[in-house]
Amino acid sequence: MRVPFGGMKAGFIGLGAMGLPMARNLARAGLLAGAWNRSGDKARALAAETATRAFGSVAELAGSSDAVVMCVSADADVLEVVDAIQPNLAAGGIVIDCSTVGADTAREAAARLAARGVAFLDCPVSGGVEGAKGGTLAIMCGGDPVAFERAGPLLRAMGRTIVHMGPSGFGQATKATNQIMCAGIIEAVGEAMAFARAEGLPLDRVIETLGQGAGSSWYFVHRAPYMARGEFPAGFRVRLHAKDLGICREMAARHGAPLPVAERALELYGRLIEEGHGDEDISAVFRLKAALFERGPDRGG
Amino acid sequence: MRVPFGGMKAGFIGLGAMGLPMARNLARAGLLAGAWNRSGDKARALAAETATRAFGSVAELAGSSDAVVMCVSADADVLEVVDAIQPNLAAGGIVIDCSTVGADTAREAAARLAARGVAFLDCPVSGGVEGAKGGTLAIMCGGDPVAFERAGPLLRAMGRTIVHMGPSGFGQATKATNQIMCAGIIEAVGEAMAFARAEGLPLDRVIETLGQGAGSSWYFVHRAPYMARGEFPAGFRVRLHAKDLGICREMAARHGAPLPVAERALELYGRLIEEGHGDEDISAVFRLKAALFERGPDRGG
Repeated sequence: MRVPFGGMKAGFIGLGAMGLPMARNLARAGLLAGAWNRSGDKARALAAETATRAFGSVAELAGSSDAVVMCVSADADVLEVVDAIQPNLAAGGIVIDCSTVGADTAREAAARLAARGVAFLDCPVSGGVEGAKGGTLAIMCGGDPVAFERAGPLLRAMGRTIVHMGPSGFGQATKATNQIMCAGIIEAVGEAMAFARAEGLPLDRVIETLGQGAGSSWYFVHRAPYMARGEFPAGFRVRLHAKDLGICREMAARHGAPLPVAERALELYGRLIEEGHGDEDISAVFRLKAALFERGPDRGG
Repeated sequence: MRVPFGGMKAGFIGLGAMGLPMARNLARAGLLAGAWNRSGDKARALAAETATRAFGSVAELAGSSDAVVMCVSADADVLEVVDAIQPNLAAGGIVIDCSTVGADTAREAAARLAARGVAFLDCPVSGGVEGAKGGTLAIMCGGDPVAFERAGPLLRAMGRTIVHMGPSGFGQATKATNQIMCAGIIEAVGEAMAFARAEGLPLDRVIETLGQGAGSSWYFVHRAPYMARGEFPAGFRVRLHAKDLGICREMAARHGAPLPVAERALELYGRLIEEGHGDEDISAVFRLKAALFERGPDRGG
């Protein structure tokens, strides 16, 4: 087993809205070997900016890095990357997956890499693009605790609240728990704000007053003002939360359990996406709630 | 119009779980003339304890007080009290209703009293029995702003966050907004915690970690630990929140609008009450969510 990643460097796969600023923070900490991205332009621009390498393939990246950090879109992407990098990873290496995918995918990836003596940590993040840029992400980790310790310098370069939740998959399960909660809260806040507006209440004063009470939440304090203005800049995009809730649904189905809160959010998000609001913040749920009150008293509920 | 209630005293109607400690706080501030309660024992005990009067009727109370504060159960009670005290109230008096009732009831009460030159303030509170005891309630007020100013000493003796929301009914509408939010949040927290438990996550660590993030809420931080322990001491009782949500439903119906979040909470609360859990904290919703995961993978959702 190798020593902690003191002077060691990570290759980064997936320079999206989250991945690019996370890779930049690794570079600032002197921990980035280089990056690979599906569209090579981004990797070359990052390489030029940070004096690191733009790799031609994930296999090449794996052969030149002590650790691999990835931030991709879907469960299939994670397993595809794992299979592609596996032949070139040295035993004792660590793969850190910051994507949001299912816990079973994390467990499968961990099993495939364990065969080669490589550790896999599922490390989904929360805190959005702002948190990724500022290096203030919360990172929820599942996997071998020794590998988690060794990965500390890399994780601390990208996030602020870094918690080991348990074995493989537990990082993803924690993230899924959070996404279910967000789904219900944003619907509650949207419905309450639509009601308050219909009652003619001064919305700023409502937010200030109720924001101090037992009905308050991060989403109420930070997103109800969007609703009051009728503007929904992302934030956390409707279509991304919908993707995450699809993962939650599959995970719950393994227990034979429905997730009524998540299902209703998926229905609302489906309508928002149809109406062209998929790239707005999830607070756009207010649009649908407000519409219920705009039908007028004769048409009923 | 009278001067502010410097040395003036209020009669208190309704010494329930909230009313009794609120009346005590008025007495401590030297602002209580005495009280009336449906069961006279409580009023006599309070009178003995605070060296104030136990009135034989609300009419007698009204004739001996500069202001009336009431904390009763239902919309009909509020109007009944208003009609009973009206003949004995002096012009320039103020009636402060701390009950949670519909905004229309508040407007009706205000209209009836306005004919006699008496102001009516709808002043529902939040903060629970603890807030009532500690004098730290949030009080959301609707009604004439001059009357609100004059009532300041009385309100400040009972609460800490005291906000004038607008004309008659606006205090109740603000409270209703809060109750809708609480309904959705407690369902979201319950569903998320049931999922987390089914995934085998360490619940204390989940609460600590997600409690710092964008999915957090007062209810998550303060009530998810109840769920983790499977104990639901009130708190905010299921049957009282159900009552409040019934008021919200009626208010929304005036706009022809449904409140899906509130309706689902009412359904869940109905089941809890049937199962004998109506006097537990609303976090008992976790019972129903956890049961979904206990049916096992074969029986589906």
